[in-house]
Amino acid sequence: MKIGILGTGMVGSALATKLVALGHEVKMGARDAANPKAADWAKSVGAKASHGTFADAAAFGEIVFNCTSGAGSLDALKAAGAANLRGKVLVDVANPLDFSRGMPPSLFTGANDSLGERIQKAYPEARVVKALNTVNATVMVDPHRVPGISDLFVCGNDAAAKAEVTRILKEWFGWPVVVDLGDITAARATEAYLLLWLRLWGTFQTADLNVHVVH
Amino acid sequence: MKIGILGTGMVGSALATKLVALGHEVKMGARDAANPKAADWAKSVGAKASHGTFADAAAFGEIVFNCTSGAGSLDALKAAGAANLRGKVLVDVANPLDFSRGMPPSLFTGANDSLGERIQKAYPEARVVKALNTVNATVMVDPHRVPGISDLFVCGNDAAAKAEVTRILKEWFGWPVVVDLGDITAARATEAYLLLWLRLWGTFQTADLNVHVVH
Repeated sequence: MKIGILGTGMVGSALATKLVALGHEVKMGARDAANPKAADWAKSVGAKASHGTFADAAAFGEIVFNCTSGAGSLDALKAAGAANLRGKVLVDVANPLDFSRGMPPSLFTGANDSLGERIQKAYPEARVVKALNTVNATVMVDPHRVPGISDLFVCGNDAAAKAEVTRILKEWFGWPVVVDLGDITAARATEAYLLLWLRLWGTFQTADLNVHVVH
Repeated sequence: MKIGILGTGMVGSALATKLVALGHEVKMGARDAANPKAADWAKSVGAKASHGTFADAAAFGEIVFNCTSGAGSLDALKAAGAANLRGKVLVDVANPLDFSRGMPPSLFTGANDSLGERIQKAYPEARVVKALNTVNATVMVDPHRVPGISDLFVCGNDAAAKAEVTRILKEWFGWPVVVDLGDITAARATEAYLLLWLRLWGTFQTADLNVHVVH
């Protein structure tokens, strides 16, 4: 499959590298076509890896992952272009973290709002699925870094898109449990969970951590 | 031990009943001394149970549990009186839920804020420990309603108070894992987690649910 990755940070790199390793063609997008991190990544990963602008990556992908920082996501998607996202599954991995007051960050979204919803509202023809935002980049593509069983969450308004993302998470990345929390408004919950994740990270001093829902 | 319970709802009743069953003397406090729910509770539970105003319950308790609704907590604590809380462990079980826009609720606290912090700031001589707010009332005092192992979180500024609450949670209520998340600002995280809890409740259609942190 052809996959577009928006963002050149740890999340984008981890997902892009894993997807190439799984045999897919991946284009990493950045604001500038000459972004050196994207260029270095593509060079190091091989023939199935390429890079370009946000628009290039979005146009290339049959599925697109938003791996930009939360504060920059809407600008990045604007650069990617609505036409390049139309009808596609857009996996939103970003979190609306506000670092302006130091660590740990807060959320910039406020009540009854989430980044996932803002993205779905701004790109109504994209099929937004919020996923993977509740674990560290290294864990996203290697869930067994965390001992035992732990869970991922998906939410979104398009059932078929959620089913496709769930299949990718389970079959490609090896996630044992993927919980469907409902429509995109559930992004309020999984994004807010980041505040707990950050405290757990501080407490246990490892990013190889996650939660398992018991019921 | 003499324990004061502020609030007559499901949380207050569950904790008060369990604490009496464990052999403690418990006074349930409400706005009005003649609150019929508190009176019925005390009558049904027996000699070690009593009821009165918020001030009566706070004065009675060597340790005090805030089990009022989040929106009413600061008013209830004002009625309880700073003098009756001074130097005492105050376990804050409430969540800052805003139901004004229907279900699921949002939080009324906003970024860089939490109900736990507001309470600690308003009552600097109380030793506030945020705890038990991440599970349903029935699970608080009976963790084995949830299969396997799941976790509770505590936070607060007073290490001795947290140690005492942790002992109560483990030895009295049977919690297998109690995670200390740090100072009272971590209440931002455990209160925000409620948004996820509510979605999980909707998904799994049971309140007998919790999370286990894996790392």
